[in-house]
Amino acid sequence: MQDVPSLVAAAREGRPRAVARLISLVEGASPQLREVMAALAPLTGGAYVVGLTGSPGVGKSTTTSALVGAFRRQGRRVGVLAVDPSSPFSGGALLGDRVRMSDHASDPGVYIRSMATRGHLGGLARAAPQAVRVLDAAGCDVVLVETVGVGQSEVEIASQADTSVVLLAPGMGDGIQAAKAGILEIGDVYVVNKADREGADATARELNHMLGLGEARGPGDWRPPVVRTVAARGEGIDEVVEALEKHRAWMEGRGVLAARRRARAAREVETLAVMALRERIGDLGGDRRLDALADRIVSGDLDPYGAADFLVEALADG
Amino acid sequence: MQDVPSLVAAAREGRPRAVARLISLVEGASPQLREVMAALAPLTGGAYVVGLTGSPGVGKSTTTSALVGAFRRQGRRVGVLAVDPSSPFSGGALLGDRVRMSDHASDPGVYIRSMATRGHLGGLARAAPQAVRVLDAAGCDVVLVETVGVGQSEVEIASQADTSVVLLAPGMGDGIQAAKAGILEIGDVYVVNKADREGADATARELNHMLGLGEARGPGDWRPPVVRTVAARGEGIDEVVEALEKHRAWMEGRGVLAARRRARAAREVETLAVMALRERIGDLGGDRRLDALADRIVSGDLDPYGAADFLVEALADG
Repeated sequence: MQDVPSLVAAAREGRPRAVARLISLVEGASPQLREVMAALAPLTGGAYVVGLTGSPGVGKSTTTSALVGAFRRQGRRVGVLAVDPSSPFSGGALLGDRVRMSDHASDPGVYIRSMATRGHLGGLARAAPQAVRVLDAAGCDVVLVETVGVGQSEVEIASQADTSVVLLAPGMGDGIQAAKAGILEIGDVYVVNKADREGADATARELNHMLGLGEARGPGDWRPPVVRTVAARGEGIDEVVEALEKHRAWMEGRGVLAARRRARAAREVETLAVMALRERIGDLGGDRRLDALADRIVSGDLDPYGAADFLVEALADG
Repeated sequence: MQDVPSLVAAAREGRPRAVARLISLVEGASPQLREVMAALAPLTGGAYVVGLTGSPGVGKSTTTSALVGAFRRQGRRVGVLAVDPSSPFSGGALLGDRVRMSDHASDPGVYIRSMATRGHLGGLARAAPQAVRVLDAAGCDVVLVETVGVGQSEVEIASQADTSVVLLAPGMGDGIQAAKAGILEIGDVYVVNKADREGADATARELNHMLGLGEARGPGDWRPPVVRTVAARGEGIDEVVEALEKHRAWMEGRGVLAARRRARAAREVETLAVMALRERIGDLGGDRRLDALADRIVSGDLDPYGAADFLVEALADG
């Protein structure tokens, strides 16, 4: 295997195998993880990160594929990170290898990577931003992060993008679902896909109505647009790209992009610090102390909050 | 509002409003949270907790409803906790109130509660076990925890049950999905619902095959059964109940039930301790230190892992 500086150099030249290897290194807890992250740091910040989320069946993969095509026609290099168990792309997560997206498989300007959602709670929240960093450092102009909008961690990942796109489709009761899942709070751009189907008008109208119910906006504030698409036929995709460009320009003009990136970095650091502390708790308990506390909870002698207090005190004492 | 001891006493008598109030208190960060948890501790441990998980569309709610009916015919008190944005039960999460499940709405021996999946990452992982504790303390003999098997946090919640049931349906490509989501590792009982549909045999066969691929089992080990149901017509439900009883008896005979509950308690304590530490990080940063680190990451001067090291050190120093 190559050393980290060579891998990073090869990734900068757009070599897909080097990019794949780097993502594998940051996904797992490899010994080179820290070396990779340190090497990537000065190379990041160039990519525009777009999150796409929506329930299974709304056409996320088709929309992502159409967006890749649109960005490629502009000559931009595109990375795709698919974090979605229902996505056809994510077969690759199972195989642990690069996935083929038929329209773009042979295009060297497109890099597609999928991540499985299995594993530790919080594992994805840690790994996804690092994978985005690799794609960013590898020279992608745009990174699309596709997630299924069901689990909270997926919504969290999408909300860490520069711009978040929420996809809906007519007739799925998505209006109510949207309110429930809190996605009305995370979208910068809303897409009603399959807009040739019955109910598209109602869905778009309901969505616009609900978006209008939010707190009053000032004159320069961002009002999330609702774009209609038929992604399978490429309809409305240029309008989505336009909405993304507008949002990016708005963010840049108002200092919002830098603020979002700072907030994203702060959350990343917080997540990693909490994970380090969690490991420390594991070391601490050993897990004699933790086991003893668990026994007391099972016997009804202590409640979990009381037990957690004991554990935190033990940590503070060293 | 009533004081905590009165609420707990009323919940023990099976008063639904008292149970609802207690769950609301443990869901949120109410000032009475710790008092409630301490009061519940000695009353818990009597309920058999069954997790049900599966992708949207496999018939989780129908199966849950049929299981409630079966347990009620045995004269047992049943609690249902629905953590599923796609569940008809979870309308209640939006309304923040008790939900009606038409067949069982007027049955005082059934308590149904839904939880929204919105909110903080990890919020559900914290709140769901506490809600189960309330139902347990309120005298439920069986608590069914229904989750959608997509997000990791939901899978994590299901895997914290005494017995985990994984539901599949024919023709949904669930076999592959199962492997991907890691659900082959979490099920104690597998249910192929909608077994009157084409492909049910193939799904059950594939599942049995994949379950057989796992590590070799010893003579006394548990081999997860695959039960076929048509929950909408009540078919196969008695067999599911029988499989649950067998699993419970097996666990009790081998000391597995006590071990699982200890492990569950340990994870609960760990989660709460990590959350307390996370709050402490927030206090620490204030968030000047965290903001400064985030700035350095955005400028490419530092990577997130290096920043997390700084933060953890700052915490250790007090």
